[in-house]
Amino acid sequence: MPLSLEEAAAIAAQKETTHTTARATVQGMEEHLYTAIPVLDHGFIRVIDYMGDDSAITQAARVSYGKGTKSVSNDEGLIRYLMRHWHSTPFEMCEVKLHVKLPVFVARQWIRHRTANVNEYSARYSILDREFYIPAPEHLAAQSSTNNQGRGDVLQGEEAQRVLDYLRDDSIRAYDHYEAMLGTEDQQGLARELARMNLPANIYTQWYWKVDLHNLFHFLRLRADAHAQYEIRVYAEAICDVVKDWVPAAYAAFEDYRLGGAQLSAKGVAALKRMLAGEQMDAEKAGMTKGEWREFEALLA
Amino acid sequence: MPLSLEEAAAIAAQKETTHTTARATVQGMEEHLYTAIPVLDHGFIRVIDYMGDDSAITQAARVSYGKGTKSVSNDEGLIRYLMRHWHSTPFEMCEVKLHVKLPVFVARQWIRHRTANVNEYSARYSILDREFYIPAPEHLAAQSSTNNQGRGDVLQGEEAQRVLDYLRDDSIRAYDHYEAMLGTEDQQGLARELARMNLPANIYTQWYWKVDLHNLFHFLRLRADAHAQYEIRVYAEAICDVVKDWVPAAYAAFEDYRLGGAQLSAKGVAALKRMLAGEQMDAEKAGMTKGEWREFEALLA
Amino acid sequence: MPLSLEEAAAIAAQKETTHTTARATVQGMEEHLYTAIPVLDHGFIRVIDYMGDDSAITQAARVSYGKGTKSVSNDEGLIRYLMRHWHSTPFEMCEVKLHVKLPVFVARQWIRHRTANVNEYSARYSILDREFYIPAPEHLAAQSSTNNQGRGDVLQGEEAQRVLDYLRDDSIRAYDHYEAMLGTEDQQGLARELARMNLPANIYTQWYWKVDLHNLFHFLRLRADAHAQYEIRVYAEAICDVVKDWVPAAYAAFEDYRLGGAQLSAKGVAALKRMLAGEQMDAEKAGMTKGEWREFEALLA
Amino acid sequence: MPLSLEEAAAIAAQKETTHTTARATVQGMEEHLYTAIPVLDHGFIRVIDYMGDDSAITQAARVSYGKGTKSVSNDEGLIRYLMRHWHSTPFEMCEVKLHVKLPVFVARQWIRHRTANVNEYSARYSILDREFYIPAPEHLAAQSSTNNQGRGDVLQGEEAQRVLDYLRDDSIRAYDHYEAMLGTEDQQGLARELARMNLPANIYTQWYWKVDLHNLFHFLRLRADAHAQYEIRVYAEAICDVVKDWVPAAYAAFEDYRLGGAQLSAKGVAALKRMLAGEQMDAEKAGMTKGEWREFEALLA
Repeated sequence: MPLSLEEAAAIAAQKETTHTTARATVQGMEEHLYTAIPVLDHGFIRVIDYMGDDSAITQAARVSYGKGTKSVSNDEGLIRYLMRHWHSTPFEMCEVKLHVKLPVFVARQWIRHRTANVNEYSARYSILDREFYIPAPEHLAAQSSTNNQGRGDVLQGEEAQRVLDYLRDDSIRAYDHYEAMLGTEDQQGLARELARMNLPANIYTQWYWKVDLHNLFHFLRLRADAHAQYEIRVYAEAICDVVKDWVPAAYAAFEDYRLGGAQLSAKGVAALKRMLAGEQMDAEKAGMTKGEWREFEALLA
Repeated sequence: MPLSLEEAAAIAAQKETTHTTARATVQGMEEHLYTAIPVLDHGFIRVIDYMGDDSAITQAARVSYGKGTKSVSNDEGLIRYLMRHWHSTPFEMCEVKLHVKLPVFVARQWIRHRTANVNEYSARYSILDREFYIPAPEHLAAQSSTNNQGRGDVLQGEEAQRVLDYLRDDSIRAYDHYEAMLGTEDQQGLARELARMNLPANIYTQWYWKVDLHNLFHFLRLRADAHAQYEIRVYAEAICDVVKDWVPAAYAAFEDYRLGGAQLSAKGVAALKRMLAGEQMDAEKAGMTKGEWREFEALLA
Repeated sequence: MPLSLEEAAAIAAQKETTHTTARATVQGMEEHLYTAIPVLDHGFIRVIDYMGDDSAITQAARVSYGKGTKSVSNDEGLIRYLMRHWHSTPFEMCEVKLHVKLPVFVARQWIRHRTANVNEYSARYSILDREFYIPAPEHLAAQSSTNNQGRGDVLQGEEAQRVLDYLRDDSIRAYDHYEAMLGTEDQQGLARELARMNLPANIYTQWYWKVDLHNLFHFLRLRADAHAQYEIRVYAEAICDVVKDWVPAAYAAFEDYRLGGAQLSAKGVAALKRMLAGEQMDAEKAGMTKGEWREFEALLA
Repeated sequence: MPLSLEEAAAIAAQKETTHTTARATVQGMEEHLYTAIPVLDHGFIRVIDYMGDDSAITQAARVSYGKGTKSVSNDEGLIRYLMRHWHSTPFEMCEVKLHVKLPVFVARQWIRHRTANVNEYSARYSILDREFYIPAPEHLAAQSSTNNQGRGDVLQGEEAQRVLDYLRDDSIRAYDHYEAMLGTEDQQGLARELARMNLPANIYTQWYWKVDLHNLFHFLRLRADAHAQYEIRVYAEAICDVVKDWVPAAYAAFEDYRLGGAQLSAKGVAALKRMLAGEQMDAEKAGMTKGEWREFEALLA
């Protein structure tokens, strides 16, 4: 369980402490507020705060386009138009703050998204908890033989057991020695900022992460994608479910144009036109490399 | 008056439409919400939304520093500590969204602050209103004779009148011709994206501007400063008054450490030590240029 | 002519002052260095400095992907792969610095691209030159009757003349009064930071603009697009010609995947599959609005 | 030794391959180019490319301030003026690209500086080398008893040995098991993106890091500071030595105003004035907390 009883009680109290506000308020998000949504074996995401709703997006667009936008009959249509034409600034008018508990190797991928605000638990300042991510047997995947950054079949039997033993035993030993180095009552102990060096990348950390909706969609497009590593994808998927309740019209447009959409090259567009005219195409005729053609065919299969 | 009766009624309605929320809520900001605070002759700022409060700052700091921060006895002390030591990320956890109406030449200075989200009224898309900033007589300042980007005495008599006439007449004529170029029922009219070229920099525009507290403080430090141009400083000062009601502890720390504080060079620190030891110093002894010494003396005067 | 004789001589001298460097150097860019490429009636772009080349992109990618990238046989293929899969960080390893002279209303659109470094001529500090953009007769377009931010036919005859007269006369008068307000030897004169208010948006300003290749491509995709306003598009096109000489492989990939490419929604992909299977589709069957269907059809026409 | 013979030969070849350029060129940086400067036991920094010099800073400032800046007699004075008054944009006109090899726990601090471009070696894609940071005995510091994020005395004797044994043995074992999990010829092996979880934070990674001079100075101010963790400070100090050779005037101003300077609060300024007037001050009279007063006294000691 990712939360202690004490933490669960604190969350319940936060949810019950309500205020009156004239700000834009979304019922679906109020229900998510503070509640920990479990991810992986010890992780979670929690909505701590949010700003704006679907209307905040169209309101911002209408400031830009003035009376001109009256022709777009409704908010949903306007949001789809903005998404389709990469008018990204109105989506920046919404903001969300999450509390996330996640393994360090996931945090290292996550932080590459620079346009966000972060406060992470400091292992220089404080002592990390003894919590490690150990994959469930069904996620213990072999290296893909075709894709350098992909996974193949799930490991089985003895090999699976051997791998799990390594991960578990090394985590325990690393943490035991971390504690031992930090010292006891009799000993001074190594500085925390040095002792943490011994901890492996599957240890859990946590942070507050605040981001606007445009940059969140960018994160979700890359990290909820089928090619993303499973361990970050599950966080992205949990966030997708929250965003759906927060800004339903914007999320629907995002799903249609980004998550489910596709990018064609000029060569791809040209090839499509010939195919629609009945021509039989191949990589050579399309002027594509084999890799490009393979991806192009997969899109239309 | 910056707002039409219709707009004032819409604002009153927004203020009355309240919701129940479990989010952090600040009474002082609820009172500001939607209300237009007049700035200059036709401009205003309005708070449209906000996220977080003083506690959001210390909460973020406590995630980073864990149990270590318990030694700082209270939130106010922790906020002062964070400000003093340039720990800027906790301040990024608060966010505010303003609706601002401002002259174009002020907007051009404002937009140089890049870490913010903006949706501006588009004169490519829509027609601008006939509203121009004309300085009040007491702000019709002469060029400073000593400071290239500063103001001197207030212009008087005939010269003042001549300047006001130029500004008023040219604004009216430019807008008349803007309208004339846009065409009438009988004429096609010049494209709006071209006709706007004729409008001077004192015409009013408006935008939604969303920014986190850290970057807002940076904006306020530069723009609420005595050296900032008067016409942007009044916007900064109006925002300062709002921020004071939003995050009083953070604003007090900002006022003490940034607005009222001073930056000393290594040479300045060395000079101070000698002065405290009773030595009589001058530019040469301090190893400063005359300009540096003048600023250093002014600080301690 | 955008440059004075004095400036032209200074540029010639800069081009002749050469150094020996072990940095990545691109012959095509060395030829562009410092030379002003004319844009509009008084504007220009000039390359002042650059960092990196096509190899800097693949080198950065190879640091990330290590030996894995050896399978991609050549640099061009790797660059196309990175562009296709939105791996944007390697493109950020190239940087270019331009000196740009441009009308203020173009500068106002340009500056909305926030991830860049800018130093603009300060009309608070210095006096602007008497140079205004006056469109050539063939660019004096009417407002589009179908597109709120587009242009229609070119204005003709008397209306065209009237518009040109307004733009020219108002520019001259505004500048005359700007000068008059700045004062003479006998008069103090209005502060420069105030006098500039009288100047219309077609006056020229200038700046140094430094940007990385990823963000430059983003700028070019939006501003070299057929829907961009003509007056910024010509700057984007001039920059495209420079980039082609700087990083030819990256530019070719950009042209194929971004400038000439297209974004399909999930609905668009589904519709395409049915069309390739021989089905006759329309907006309703595709689940698209009329606007979406129109854009979708235009893509495949 | 941080580099293999093969790598050393490649660097020597890069240094010898020179070109002619008309770009701003700095002799001191040409000498640094490509050469690995050792940091810690296996790390290094290497300059891969640079753009601009001291003159690029003043040139950008002069574009902004026009003829007004002629009054500042020389480049050095202008650079000091810009630094003193927080005019940061001219410093953004210089850019540097480094290749850095560093332990993961250092990389995690480093990456918090968001305004930079990074390409890191991907342990998802490729296999990490068996290289770990093991502190030299003189850096094996105990936890500070007064500062939560500081170091105390150096560990001695048996405790030091025990800590070193933990760090060395656990690193070796973690890497052995990492290799074992990756599989052999007979076995499929665990996916690389999972196997890396077992590696501790003292393993070395590497990246290309590109940053402008303003943001680099911000990084150096925080990381070359006496309160920064030793293991990142040595990187910052190595970079300081490079910057000194690159932009000597800017670095001197940075050293005087930032590294060696001090920030005073309004209360601090007020207290100073009273002290200079001969008054005996203490925390209470100054209206400071004990912590603030302690820091204030330390500054003037």
